[in-house]
Amino acid sequence: MSVSAGQGVHPTITVLHGDDQPQLSGLEHVRLAHDAATLAAALPGTEVLLVWDFLSDAVHDAWPAADAGLRWVHTASAGVDRLSFPGLAGSAVTVTNSRGVFDTPIAEYVLGLVLAMAKDLPTTLALQARREWRHRDAEQVAGATAVVVGGGPIGRAVARLLRAVGMHVELVGRAAAPGRHGFDELPVLLPRAGWLVLAAPLTEQTRGMVDAAALAALPAGARVINVARGALVDEAALVAAVRLGRLGGAALDVVATEPLLPSSPLWELPGVIISPHMSGDTHGWRAALVDAFIANLDRYRAGQPLHNVVDKRLGYVTDGPDGSI
Amino acid sequence: MSVSAGQGVHPTITVLHGDDQPQLSGLEHVRLAHDAATLAAALPGTEVLLVWDFLSDAVHDAWPAADAGLRWVHTASAGVDRLSFPGLAGSAVTVTNSRGVFDTPIAEYVLGLVLAMAKDLPTTLALQARREWRHRDAEQVAGATAVVVGGGPIGRAVARLLRAVGMHVELVGRAAAPGRHGFDELPVLLPRAGWLVLAAPLTEQTRGMVDAAALAALPAGARVINVARGALVDEAALVAAVRLGRLGGAALDVVATEPLLPSSPLWELPGVIISPHMSGDTHGWRAALVDAFIANLDRYRAGQPLHNVVDKRLGYVTDGPDGSI
Repeated sequence: MSVSAGQGVHPTITVLHGDDQPQLSGLEHVRLAHDAATLAAALPGTEVLLVWDFLSDAVHDAWPAADAGLRWVHTASAGVDRLSFPGLAGSAVTVTNSRGVFDTPIAEYVLGLVLAMAKDLPTTLALQARREWRHRDAEQVAGATAVVVGGGPIGRAVARLLRAVGMHVELVGRAAAPGRHGFDELPVLLPRAGWLVLAAPLTEQTRGMVDAAALAALPAGARVINVARGALVDEAALVAAVRLGRLGGAALDVVATEPLLPSSPLWELPGVIISPHMSGDTHGWRAALVDAFIANLDRYRAGQPLHNVVDKRLGYVTDGPDGSI
Repeated sequence: MSVSAGQGVHPTITVLHGDDQPQLSGLEHVRLAHDAATLAAALPGTEVLLVWDFLSDAVHDAWPAADAGLRWVHTASAGVDRLSFPGLAGSAVTVTNSRGVFDTPIAEYVLGLVLAMAKDLPTTLALQARREWRHRDAEQVAGATAVVVGGGPIGRAVARLLRAVGMHVELVGRAAAPGRHGFDELPVLLPRAGWLVLAAPLTEQTRGMVDAAALAALPAGARVINVARGALVDEAALVAAVRLGRLGGAALDVVATEPLLPSSPLWELPGVIISPHMSGDTHGWRAALVDAFIANLDRYRAGQPLHNVVDKRLGYVTDGPDGSI
């Protein structure tokens, strides 16, 4: 898909930001918005929308106002779930994402969580706080089996890194492909998943896929790691499975409602690690995201096809330098 | 070196144990000892000493009694520092260690510590305990440089695993060899060591090698990880370097005095992770250690050369299936 006709050399750009703003020095015609109201006010005359606050619902909420002159929406994220609504999907607006920026950081983060749980690091730190020296046996991860859900570049990077430490990895994507199972094979794979890693886009197909039945299919003591979107997991079912001792633990970098509500039982659930949606964010990530946007903006100005164009029906990029997901 | 003449088919074996004892079912003529006094009482008539409590000084303390009929000492550890004293070194007694059992577990543990520090997991867990969702940027480990001190199988396994996640690793052993620097090159290597990993035997050459000067040579913000023996590090100098903000942190699985004294400042030093000498101990490690001993015992009974014979002058095994260190 390309945006090829009529765009301006200096298009008006609106930035939907949250707590922080991207450094876009040198760009002209930049408007700022931080919620649905300010976005609706900024959009008339805007050609390009940069969604910096990728967890905001403001684009959805401001949509009727947006659909006049807007040609391209770029999101500073891999996931485009907040942009997957009928108004945008049915429009002529092109959506691009930040595919590639987060692959290695997220893969490292997942491996760090696997090793932290296998080596019982949370207990070690809790004992340290009490000045208590208490030896325990840990687990070896080499030889363990991980099922990685997500056949895109992030899931593939996770699989690569887990294999590099000797784990046996089954990669699962929407449809089977060489080196990859399809979602329909999960009933066979889950009973072998000592580690279940979620790295798939949030789509209608993945929403709630880790429900009570999926959790019950895992082997006793299995761990669940979610670095995708919270809504892939039925959190109530997860809490119940942990409380019943069915799971060995979980590490959630994403939750259904972010920030996680102070009242959530997840905070204090034994064996559960909660981190604040940071798996992809290594030093320099903001600059990397800006660079990715600017590179695409240069293509836009030159009338060239944009990179990382999202299939708005599927909810992710289906082609790219790393192959289809 | 071999123990080839005169040993019994059913030699008397004394086991020096600590809090737990090995499962040696099926063996005859087994005596137990748990300190210098009980060891001295058990040793007369003992041909084989299994040092299960490898941090005990009882062999040293009971030595005059031991040197009568003892032919072989096997330690349930990789390090033989507690057995490196002149009486034993000058005797005809053969010393063997448990080389190989701990390589993969320790390498995984080191990588887990690297990722935990790079991803700021201790802060995440502390925030979680306060039900606080606070995003931070983390570090990417791919591309970072680690200096791994220890050219034996453990150091090599650590280097292999750190390289597998894209780190640049400089391996350092006693003397330079293909793919390995010598200790004399450390002054050149330390200023590049974002991560300094200690996996070397405790010998007169390595004792206190990470002193104030070595710590000062590291780049600002460097991390030190010790999975070898506590005495490789000048702990007072380490504490000072952390307090001055020179180091980015440290992870000590071993300390000079174990268990670490409750009064030690290390427990509460910001950025320092203390774990209770567990890096090599994954489920089944006791059985693996017993298996290694029994396999060597079978060789002893058959008059065959023993595996993993320690060079008592150097303080480690110089030959073996993995090559020389």
